[in-house]
Amino acid sequence: MRLIQYNSQKYTDISGKDVAALTTTIDNDCINWIDVEAAEEQVVKQIAAYFCLHEMIIEDILIQDHLPKLEIFENHLFFTLRMLYYNSKDEELNEEQLSIVLGENYVLSFQSGIEGDVFDNILADLKLGKGIIRKEKTDYLFYRILDAVIDEYFNILELLREQIETLEEFILSTPHPSEATVGQILELRKKITLVRKYTIPLKDIVSKLKTADSKFINPGTITFLQDISDQLLLLNTNFETFREMLKDLMELYLANLSHNLNRVMKTLTIVATIFIPLTFVAGIYGMNFENMPELHWKYGYFIIWGIMLLLALLMVYYMKKMHWFE
Amino acid sequence: MRLIQYNSQKYTDISGKDVAALTTTIDNDCINWIDVEAAEEQVVKQIAAYFCLHEMIIEDILIQDHLPKLEIFENHLFFTLRMLYYNSKDEELNEEQLSIVLGENYVLSFQSGIEGDVFDNILADLKLGKGIIRKEKTDYLFYRILDAVIDEYFNILELLREQIETLEEFILSTPHPSEATVGQILELRKKITLVRKYTIPLKDIVSKLKTADSKFINPGTITFLQDISDQLLLLNTNFETFREMLKDLMELYLANLSHNLNRVMKTLTIVATIFIPLTFVAGIYGMNFENMPELHWKYGYFIIWGIMLLLALLMVYYMKKMHWFE
Amino acid sequence: MRLIQYNSQKYTDISGKDVAALTTTIDNDCINWIDVEAAEEQVVKQIAAYFCLHEMIIEDILIQDHLPKLEIFENHLFFTLRMLYYNSKDEELNEEQLSIVLGENYVLSFQSGIEGDVFDNILADLKLGKGIIRKEKTDYLFYRILDAVIDEYFNILELLREQIETLEEFILSTPHPSEATVGQILELRKKITLVRKYTIPLKDIVSKLKTADSKFINPGTITFLQDISDQLLLLNTNFETFREMLKDLMELYLANLSHNLNRVMKTLTIVATIFIPLTFVAGIYGMNFENMPELHWKYGYFIIWGIMLLLALLMVYYMKKMHWFE
Amino acid sequence: MRLIQYNSQKYTDISGKDVAALTTTIDNDCINWIDVEAAEEQVVKQIAAYFCLHEMIIEDILIQDHLPKLEIFENHLFFTLRMLYYNSKDEELNEEQLSIVLGENYVLSFQSGIEGDVFDNILADLKLGKGIIRKEKTDYLFYRILDAVIDEYFNILELLREQIETLEEFILSTPHPSEATVGQILELRKKITLVRKYTIPLKDIVSKLKTADSKFINPGTITFLQDISDQLLLLNTNFETFREMLKDLMELYLANLSHNLNRVMKTLTIVATIFIPLTFVAGIYGMNFENMPELHWKYGYFIIWGIMLLLALLMVYYMKKMHWFE
Amino acid sequence: MRLIQYNSQKYTDISGKDVAALTTTIDNDCINWIDVEAAEEQVVKQIAAYFCLHEMIIEDILIQDHLPKLEIFENHLFFTLRMLYYNSKDEELNEEQLSIVLGENYVLSFQSGIEGDVFDNILADLKLGKGIIRKEKTDYLFYRILDAVIDEYFNILELLREQIETLEEFILSTPHPSEATVGQILELRKKITLVRKYTIPLKDIVSKLKTADSKFINPGTITFLQDISDQLLLLNTNFETFREMLKDLMELYLANLSHNLNRVMKTLTIVATIFIPLTFVAGIYGMNFENMPELHWKYGYFIIWGIMLLLALLMVYYMKKMHWFE
Repeated sequence: MRLIQYNSQKYTDISGKDVAALTTTIDNDCINWIDVEAAEEQVVKQIAAYFCLHEMIIEDILIQDHLPKLEIFENHLFFTLRMLYYNSKDEELNEEQLSIVLGENYVLSFQSGIEGDVFDNILADLKLGKGIIRKEKTDYLFYRILDAVIDEYFNILELLREQIETLEEFILSTPHPSEATVGQILELRKKITLVRKYTIPLKDIVSKLKTADSKFINPGTITFLQDISDQLLLLNTNFETFREMLKDLMELYLANLSHNLNRVMKTLTIVATIFIPLTFVAGIYGMNFENMPELHWKYGYFIIWGIMLLLALLMVYYMKKMHWFE
Repeated sequence: MRLIQYNSQKYTDISGKDVAALTTTIDNDCINWIDVEAAEEQVVKQIAAYFCLHEMIIEDILIQDHLPKLEIFENHLFFTLRMLYYNSKDEELNEEQLSIVLGENYVLSFQSGIEGDVFDNILADLKLGKGIIRKEKTDYLFYRILDAVIDEYFNILELLREQIETLEEFILSTPHPSEATVGQILELRKKITLVRKYTIPLKDIVSKLKTADSKFINPGTITFLQDISDQLLLLNTNFETFREMLKDLMELYLANLSHNLNRVMKTLTIVATIFIPLTFVAGIYGMNFENMPELHWKYGYFIIWGIMLLLALLMVYYMKKMHWFE
Repeated sequence: MRLIQYNSQKYTDISGKDVAALTTTIDNDCINWIDVEAAEEQVVKQIAAYFCLHEMIIEDILIQDHLPKLEIFENHLFFTLRMLYYNSKDEELNEEQLSIVLGENYVLSFQSGIEGDVFDNILADLKLGKGIIRKEKTDYLFYRILDAVIDEYFNILELLREQIETLEEFILSTPHPSEATVGQILELRKKITLVRKYTIPLKDIVSKLKTADSKFINPGTITFLQDISDQLLLLNTNFETFREMLKDLMELYLANLSHNLNRVMKTLTIVATIFIPLTFVAGIYGMNFENMPELHWKYGYFIIWGIMLLLALLMVYYMKKMHWFE
Repeated sequence: MRLIQYNSQKYTDISGKDVAALTTTIDNDCINWIDVEAAEEQVVKQIAAYFCLHEMIIEDILIQDHLPKLEIFENHLFFTLRMLYYNSKDEELNEEQLSIVLGENYVLSFQSGIEGDVFDNILADLKLGKGIIRKEKTDYLFYRILDAVIDEYFNILELLREQIETLEEFILSTPHPSEATVGQILELRKKITLVRKYTIPLKDIVSKLKTADSKFINPGTITFLQDISDQLLLLNTNFETFREMLKDLMELYLANLSHNLNRVMKTLTIVATIFIPLTFVAGIYGMNFENMPELHWKYGYFIIWGIMLLLALLMVYYMKKMHWFE
Repeated sequence: MRLIQYNSQKYTDISGKDVAALTTTIDNDCINWIDVEAAEEQVVKQIAAYFCLHEMIIEDILIQDHLPKLEIFENHLFFTLRMLYYNSKDEELNEEQLSIVLGENYVLSFQSGIEGDVFDNILADLKLGKGIIRKEKTDYLFYRILDAVIDEYFNILELLREQIETLEEFILSTPHPSEATVGQILELRKKITLVRKYTIPLKDIVSKLKTADSKFINPGTITFLQDISDQLLLLNTNFETFREMLKDLMELYLANLSHNLNRVMKTLTIVATIFIPLTFVAGIYGMNFENMPELHWKYGYFIIWGIMLLLALLMVYYMKKMHWFE
């Protein structure tokens, strides 16, 4: 748990585990940002009591399986969304719930996990007083938090784009389809479905926020929220394109599979069609009938060789005409 | 049939089969909740007459094959929805129609079946006066009933999620597709279609209720209804994801099937392509022509062995180059 | 052609072929319902002239290939829809156009065909004065007609449901897909498309009627129209589910087809892979070389038998390991 | 180029190539309809100048590749749509752009081609003064032109319906799929896509026109436009159904293809599975080992025949049990 | 960087690299169009400072990965879109971001690349004073720029149409599907997805612009924007049709693949079904049993030939009946 207090003059950053101690240092002349990692029920309830939050909000913070949502109360504004991190080790997407309460001079952020390096940039800017962040109200801080989360989405977008392109190149260059490919396509599709599950409602909610007419959202912030909106639209459009690409890859893969089967069957047919009739001819003259005139001809054996060669050539010619060797 | 009467002071719970007897005990200072299981025409009509319900409502309660719907009358509010239970024995979804009439100081609930353990939590809370339920009006009780039904939906959601994940693991780990898998996929798809059939209109109806401006819905309850709305959205989003997953599983399964065919055909082609030409060669020297010089060579037999080995190796080499052994 | 006159006191039912004669008996104190079967141009025009109907209505009645539609005029209201009957003989859906004109004290119904047993219930109720039908205005009669037509739709729904379930059972229990199955699936799909073509616009039109603010629709009737609306929604939701089910059946069928091919090919490959190499070995010792040492060994024949058995066992073992016998 | 002038009293029809000459004969007491076939830039500009048309309209008339559109100006109304003719010779759909300008007492129609027999009915009615056409204003003429074009669409609809039904019958009755069928399906699909490209926006535009509140559209004409709207809806619904049907035909065709492959492979497998093992047995006793006891048995040959017959029967029995002969 | 100044009297065209120098020459009696190619941060910031642009705009100009968007400020209007060029060398689509700022008497256009020959026509018209461009305000110039960009889209449309038609012809005329075809189909699909990604939002934005009620958009320009809107609709409808066509081509291709497999398997089955039984017969009489009566018959050999011919003919007859030679 961490309390960051700032205004255009000052900046303090206190870490602590005791809610009571922390809340006593709250200064109404500053913006007070309390960031809680791995939020526990006890802590959430104490903070909620201090800031008089609605009972429903406490529940929403504690239950971690939400879609993004926005609720507007008279004295504060509640926003919950999903942070996603790409874990490069096991190539999984890690999820973390982030709940934000926005009051007149306080911002509360509750994270369900502890992987919160997303806020590092904001903290650095706050400390150094870089940009306009120290001069603006809580809504600008809120915009910065949203922006940081969405930047992480863009990282995931780029990682997925890379993986899709690698996969596409692999499928196009490997005409012998491997079974693992379907798994990879489905894995990517699943990740995209997961991200879209959160980004699509987020877009609606940011739009709602823009027109919300809440006293906590200053007109100047609307432009920044519009920017967030544009970025979310770009995200969603890109994910839509990725889905199309994966669908195309699946089709390509299945067409390759069909092609492969065709090629294998062609080989079998070519070999069988040439040699089965020849084997039959050889079988004929392997029969033990007493009266088989051809066997006694002087050049019978060589004539048969000739006939068989002719037969084989005819077959090959026919196959060539049917484009089977292509 | 059961009549529960409560207010912040008292709580009584009467069971009975006689409508007339039950209705005489109705107390206008309390909230009167009449819960009818396996509702019969006779009973419904008597109760409807007592509470002056519209004829259409009686019909709606008795006909059991409804989609969820809401009707707002001047003196009461009629809501019908579908309870679903997962029967773990035969892995089926059991359905039960639940109709609720909401008046100023009474709530009537009619269940078409008798598997009503959904209300146990509510009854316990009422008895013990836990939470705010005894202090609130009928609309809060109504919210609690809705909430209990939707909790059951979430149970089904989790059960289905589990089954889909088990199936996915099975398909991914078993490269030899079994015919039963398609049946399982379709079975799951059917269940999801069934649940969605009820949850999708439910969402619209709860939204309608929120903005209904009925005198029975107090402003404080709107927040709870919003929570129901959010939960229904989460349900529907999840079911949508499940559908996608099942579609992907079907594709995976069919791709596995194609792969299997490819593998089988490759084996056949490899064996046939190697041995059919060799059999032909053996057939040649099984012929009985009188004049076959090779037969009289001293090492003819061994030379032919050599030629056949060479042929076989060439074939294998060609196949290797074509990646057929992968 | 038939004229039914009724009010709360009296009920008369006159059949006739002469429009002029019929119209003279029209009584403005009653509700006059003229039902015309297999409506001919001449008759329609005479009736239209008597009731001063718009020229467009005449055309709409006579041209039989309509989608459902509603037109509201000052002095009457025109509604046209499609009656569907399931002909159990040739398993076809028969269609009939039904046009209704609703005036203050008259209802005109024009049927394009003659299979009009749909109205039997209404006529019986009118005759016996059962229910509220004799006390209500023309709009209630109109509701009853609509209701009768939609009941017929529900009959079709049930018949289709039965057929789909029979088909599903058949496909699931018959692992050897028959060619006729695709035809049956497509036949059912076609029927569903046909019914939906009429029920989907009907729903919109009934909604329009509910809010139409026409003087012929009394407030009390709105509730009944709402009921029609709910029923149409239920119909459409069910047909949507049927479509999904048929799509699933098609997939199941095609997967069965693939499975069958796999099974056939496996059998071929098993037989061929075992016997082709053995035949080759037998072919070797069928050669007639002079110098083949093995032929002269005492137990050569038995050794070869042993080798062939070993080879066969190895093949079977390999196939078992590859799960080909499953 | 043709100028038709009419009112309830008179009717004149002048053809000519000189715009100036034609325009001098324009009579403001009549409705003046100028119909230009194969409209050239020069002519369009002269006419536009005479009637003071907006520059944009000239461009829209001359550029022939439009979607239907409607533009409402103060003194006139511009409408452009696509006429389609079915060319029965080469089974192609011919397109022609039709632009209509509607003024108070003039109607200008510009056709890009010369196949304009669509207007014959209108001209006949005008000449004979049949119907109400001579008594009505320009908006009724406009309705009649629209109606004539849409009638042509219905012709195409019927032709396509016929072709689809022929194709369906062919596919259902021919179990041996021919390669040309896919081409035919795609050809039909293309035609439907083409017609829908024009009819779908047309519907929106007619709706817009109905509510346009232009002084050139009299209230009485709205009913006729409604009729056009209904017809377009019917067209689009039917084309949608056709698309479904073609999709079903494609599926049917591909299922037939799969069935055929299955049947072919079954035949191969039956033959190969019976004869390959038998050939092996024959091969065994074709070996030349010195010590093969069976060869010297008196009935060895007949015993082997018996064994082979037994083997064949066993195979056939197994296949029968596996339903391979169905 | 280039500054074009014009009004109805004068026209000057200055190129330069120094922003400060350029801005000093700005003349408020003219329309000042600054066109910046390969826009660098430094330059953009200087220009933005001069014209007092919002900080967000600078960012939007510099970040090149946008979807089209429109932002309306009090003193100017910001529009960004995507120019696409078809690079005929490597058959790729090149992208370039174009940002436009529209003020009362200035237009700023920032291109991210340098391939800007799109504006040549506009510049020529400006120089020669052709058309109304010199008489109109900045909004007309803006329309011309939009129009030039969209013309480029139409070029791409025509190129893609050509490629799709070539591909279609190729697939229809080549019954032996080549593996590269899938790649080509997917390549085209990708290009269409890319263009649509920009044209679909563009359409919405132009609609928004039309109704934007900004002081910079004169009523007379609305008609021109409407034209742009119509063109974008036409573009999107066409791309939609292309997508359908490519989907159809893919289906055609896969059907061809299936057909090919069918044909290959038929050939194999015909050859194998005829010769395998015959080879068996030959094998029989190749056995070395001592007691085989047929071997000693005088015409045994010829009788066997006869039997084998008969067998072959029977097989061929059966296959003919089964339509296998079609």
